Amino acid sequence: MKNIIIASTSTIHGSGYLDYILEELNTFFKEAETILFIPYARPGGISHDEYTNIVKTAFTKINKTVKGIHEFENPVEAIANAEAIFTGGGNTFVLTDMLHRNHLIEAIQNVVKNGTPYLGTSAGSNICGLTIRTTNDMPIVYPPSFNALALVPFNINPHYLDPDTNSKHMGETRETRIKEFHGFNPQPVVGLREGSWLRVSGDSIVLKGHLTARIFEKGKSPCEVEPETELNTLK
Amino acid sequence: MKNIIIASTSTIHGSGYLDYILEELNTFFKEAETILFIPYARPGGISHDEYTNIVKTAFTKINKTVKGIHEFENPVEAIANAEAIFTGGGNTFVLTDMLHRNHLIEAIQNVVKNGTPYLGTSAGSNICGLTIRTTNDMPIVYPPSFNALALVPFNINPHYLDPDTNSKHMGETRETRIKEFHGFNPQPVVGLREGSWLRVSGDSIVLKGHLTARIFEKGKSPCEVEPETELNTLK
Repeated sequence: MKNIIIASTSTIHGSGYLDYILEELNTFFKEAETILFIPYARPGGISHDEYTNIVKTAFTKINKTVKGIHEFENPVEAIANAEAIFTGGGNTFVLTDMLHRNHLIEAIQNVVKNGTPYLGTSAGSNICGLTIRTTNDMPIVYPPSFNALALVPFNINPHYLDPDTNSKHMGETRETRIKEFHGFNPQPVVGLREGSWLRVSGDSIVLKGHLTARIFEKGKSPCEVEPETELNTLK
Repeated sequence: MKNIIIASTSTIHGSGYLDYILEELNTFFKEAETILFIPYARPGGISHDEYTNIVKTAFTKINKTVKGIHEFENPVEAIANAEAIFTGGGNTFVLTDMLHRNHLIEAIQNVVKNGTPYLGTSAGSNICGLTIRTTNDMPIVYPPSFNALALVPFNINPHYLDPDTNSKHMGETRETRIKEFHGFNPQPVVGLREGSWLRVSGDSIVLKGHLTARIFEKGKSPCEVEPETELNTLK
């Protein structure tokens, strides 16, 4: 049975790394002593070791040990043997490139389908969708494919941002970009605001946190859904 | 001799399409009666015809005829025979995908090297750089390559946006994204603010408009350059 948290962000304004969701994670990871961390997204270009150390520090607060996947000789085996998996944020293209090159897409899909708990934040959540075609990130590397883990039957837009009605900047708003996405792609997109997450348990997909999420479906007007809404019919 | 305008945007806040730069374009296109328009970037998913009509209307103000490249049976020949070329904004991935699939990268490089005037705005400017790896756009299609026209020896970031110091949003700033780009790529990036453009004449590349541009080089602190600065040493 799938057991997943897809979080918009690792950090909300004014609090520490993962702090806002730590209580939830204490329950979510209750069966795991050690969490396998995937640091591939390298926010700000930091090293795998540096990134893993940040995550180690955060998880000591709930008494979990963290090991970076880069510490293993065989990453596919590391996934297969993991008690629980966490993929952190950073650059979605860099992350996706590494997952494909290390043959980890299918490896992660297999263990998550069989119940290994998976936590994603930001880029680590983006890859839970069908493709990474709704990432906000800059395409700083060229991955072999934009296909992602497809753990849910739609796409994710993390850090969803409402249009700034005071802005004089002529660049596209997030909503315009997602509308353009639907000019070329059929699947729904869930815009997750910071502090929100999706809780996947088997076939159930529920919006969590205090904020509404914005749902984009091809050919329909976007709509807002309330926390605790069941999203498993979205596809 | 290369003869290029690389503009950050088509439209500045509060004025019509191309209005802010129309006087400059009147001189730039003085030898051309007809401009070949490349509408592939399809802003907001509009059709090639719809987009070309917007551009036709704008160019009547300076008495130019506009033909869309999609109106020709053979786009490579259309480029070879063009008096002048304009590539408009929209989605850089969609644009790049079409350029590669229609074998237009080399075709455009060849004519621009031989002096055909080229105007780009937004996505049409992004593709003047070495790669599209510093686009702001959403990767809604998967192009065969991120390589671009390489008409200048660096990358372009159009619609360059300074960090909003009041924002509580935790998504990356533009500067952070470009810093991440330099974790994986060596080439300089020119952040062009809206209303700015680069004027390329042969080997000369000069910043135009009223605003400074922000220059990012790997391993250096970003710096601002004033209008009329010669950028041909940047590589």
